[in-house]
Amino acid sequence: MAINKAPQAFPRTEYLRRLAAVKAEMGRRDIDALVVSFDRHMNYLTGYTARSGYVPQGLVVSTREEEPTIILRQMDAPAAHHQTFLQRDKVIGYPEALIGNPEKDGYDSVIDFLHEVGAANRAVGLEFGNLPPAAVEKFKARLPKAKIVDFTGAITWIRMIKSDLEIAFMKDAAAITDAGMMRAAEVIRPGVREADAAAEIVATLARGTNGKAGTSLANFWMNSSPRTGTSHLTWSDDVYRVGSQINLEVAGVRYTYTAPMSRTFSIGRPSERLHRVHEAQLAGLDAALGAFRPGSTCSDIAQAAQRALEKHGVHKESRFGYPVGIDWTETTASLKEGDMTVLKPNMTFHLHLGNWVDEDFGVMVSQCIRVTDSGVEVLTKTPLKLFELPSAP
Amino acid sequence: MAINKAPQAFPRTEYLRRLAAVKAEMGRRDIDALVVSFDRHMNYLTGYTARSGYVPQGLVVSTREEEPTIILRQMDAPAAHHQTFLQRDKVIGYPEALIGNPEKDGYDSVIDFLHEVGAANRAVGLEFGNLPPAAVEKFKARLPKAKIVDFTGAITWIRMIKSDLEIAFMKDAAAITDAGMMRAAEVIRPGVREADAAAEIVATLARGTNGKAGTSLANFWMNSSPRTGTSHLTWSDDVYRVGSQINLEVAGVRYTYTAPMSRTFSIGRPSERLHRVHEAQLAGLDAALGAFRPGSTCSDIAQAAQRALEKHGVHKESRFGYPVGIDWTETTASLKEGDMTVLKPNMTFHLHLGNWVDEDFGVMVSQCIRVTDSGVEVLTKTPLKLFELPSAP
Repeated sequence: MAINKAPQAFPRTEYLRRLAAVKAEMGRRDIDALVVSFDRHMNYLTGYTARSGYVPQGLVVSTREEEPTIILRQMDAPAAHHQTFLQRDKVIGYPEALIGNPEKDGYDSVIDFLHEVGAANRAVGLEFGNLPPAAVEKFKARLPKAKIVDFTGAITWIRMIKSDLEIAFMKDAAAITDAGMMRAAEVIRPGVREADAAAEIVATLARGTNGKAGTSLANFWMNSSPRTGTSHLTWSDDVYRVGSQINLEVAGVRYTYTAPMSRTFSIGRPSERLHRVHEAQLAGLDAALGAFRPGSTCSDIAQAAQRALEKHGVHKESRFGYPVGIDWTETTASLKEGDMTVLKPNMTFHLHLGNWVDEDFGVMVSQCIRVTDSGVEVLTKTPLKLFELPSAP
Repeated sequence: MAINKAPQAFPRTEYLRRLAAVKAEMGRRDIDALVVSFDRHMNYLTGYTARSGYVPQGLVVSTREEEPTIILRQMDAPAAHHQTFLQRDKVIGYPEALIGNPEKDGYDSVIDFLHEVGAANRAVGLEFGNLPPAAVEKFKARLPKAKIVDFTGAITWIRMIKSDLEIAFMKDAAAITDAGMMRAAEVIRPGVREADAAAEIVATLARGTNGKAGTSLANFWMNSSPRTGTSHLTWSDDVYRVGSQINLEVAGVRYTYTAPMSRTFSIGRPSERLHRVHEAQLAGLDAALGAFRPGSTCSDIAQAAQRALEKHGVHKESRFGYPVGIDWTETTASLKEGDMTVLKPNMTFHLHLGNWVDEDFGVMVSQCIRVTDSGVEVLTKTPLKLFELPSAP
């Protein structure tokens, strides 16, 4: 029997809005048909969230059709019928025989489809950066009369400005983030294994808050003493001790929208150095938040933060954050000096003051924020402080 | 201060064994220097597990040097000092200014390094399939005198046969998998939200078992009614009901080694159809396990399973499994008819009888197994049955 449609996270009009923006960009580049390969973009344009991107798949957007066509492994087609706003004939499953097949794979099915719809003699956009080089070569070889145009990253720029519907999910996600961080503050104690604290945190991120569950789990970072100078590790086999410092970066997720945030914890009194750097970071964060206004650039935010840090004798080498949305990072602008991207309402950022001062010492604080018409709204509500946790178990 | 070395998951000799196998393959292909880009391969050859691969990075293996050199974003270099077996001078951090920089990125640092060590006039291996096409072009353009050779997938084939040390972690991971699945059997009840069951399962996968924590979390799949015909979804906002069927695929992880397994649950009595397909799958699994012997091929296993299924009136379109190890799937052989890969001791597979019979109906059962000298060892110990769960909350 046909699988039913799931309750939709977004109305059809929201997807048509997104598709219209993509088609407008296709028009500017004289592209008639676009093959979307990046799974986040496929999600953005259809609502498909299954984690099937480890095999070839693609979403074909045509300027001549209202709805795009999603081409997936047969096993994954039911998930597309269930999850996406697409009509049934816009979901194509390719045969399982193309899996683990050195001769022919799912990209051949995508190319066959381009031939069928008459796109083979026109300009075809590909996301080169989200395809194996051999697949790009296959598209070129099997579409010799098409003009192949690189569309990498274009949809990510479109994603950068959220609709109010997307912002609502970012807020739900931020509330889950807050719940996860507050759970961390309850369970991180001397004698507790890092893994057991992690278990409580991820369980909270799955359960969600306010009756809204986390809909998936993002990676999260727990860089504890002696690893506070690292930034992308998870928990270890260690046990927390009195004096341990924990740099924690977590993100709740609601319908793929991800709201990351960082805080630093100290079991017992923080060292003077930790306290000093954290104070500088709070000043930097405050200055950055004050710099958001209509017409500000990413560079303006970074400069304001850096100036405030430097007044406290601290300099930050790494950028001050990046846009966030579906599945955490959007690879577009950076909050760094020299990035002249102009901030616009409903852009969302992970504003990050994290500083890896020495190989064995770093301190983190960050917020998830939304650019507004007049300034900025902080989405994450966890107390903005260096958390001092009890030394007793 | 310099960060200390973490307790090492593997001794130095294990990494040198792996590197020797890679260098032998480089020798066969006349490659002097190899740039490893796939993060699982970087992990395999050094012990580095930080999730930093969303920015450019690389591991340079030279046939002239015992240890490779890892080149990472500056922020991630401390993690490499801490986690890997490498000497300090084998870890290079590139400047933060190369992040979000359209002119120059981390791949330029890798290319600079190749020039410095005199590899620019020799044969250089790249993992094309794990690089953006633009990066491949940059390597070619900036190394005009080098012979560029594609090394994609070669290390994955080397990873396919595990050492006994790796098998020990696969067993630890499988025990965590079992704990997660048995927790699912305890918490999936009518009236429970899928998200709350997921929270308990992931918490168990993080805590681990037998005093050995899960060291990270793999994605896991929970395809519940009406989604049992899908295969790669996570939990939804739904609540379980009497009569719900739940197809669950979970994997414990220990030091990146991942042991996936599937079971099917029915709240209350399973339907006749579910019972019948599951019985066929158990027969297929049994036949497949019986087909493992020295000299068997992947095709032999698939044929044995298919014949047993067909005796029960069931046919499976998709492959019967795939090799597993670091971070779940290894993209090499497939347990499918026609795959003539010969099975060797200490290969590990996810032997999967999952069958998506109709768009709205599928059934799963699988085991994580190791090929032995004489046959097969099943690593996962969860009871091999269709789980009938209580209809009362």
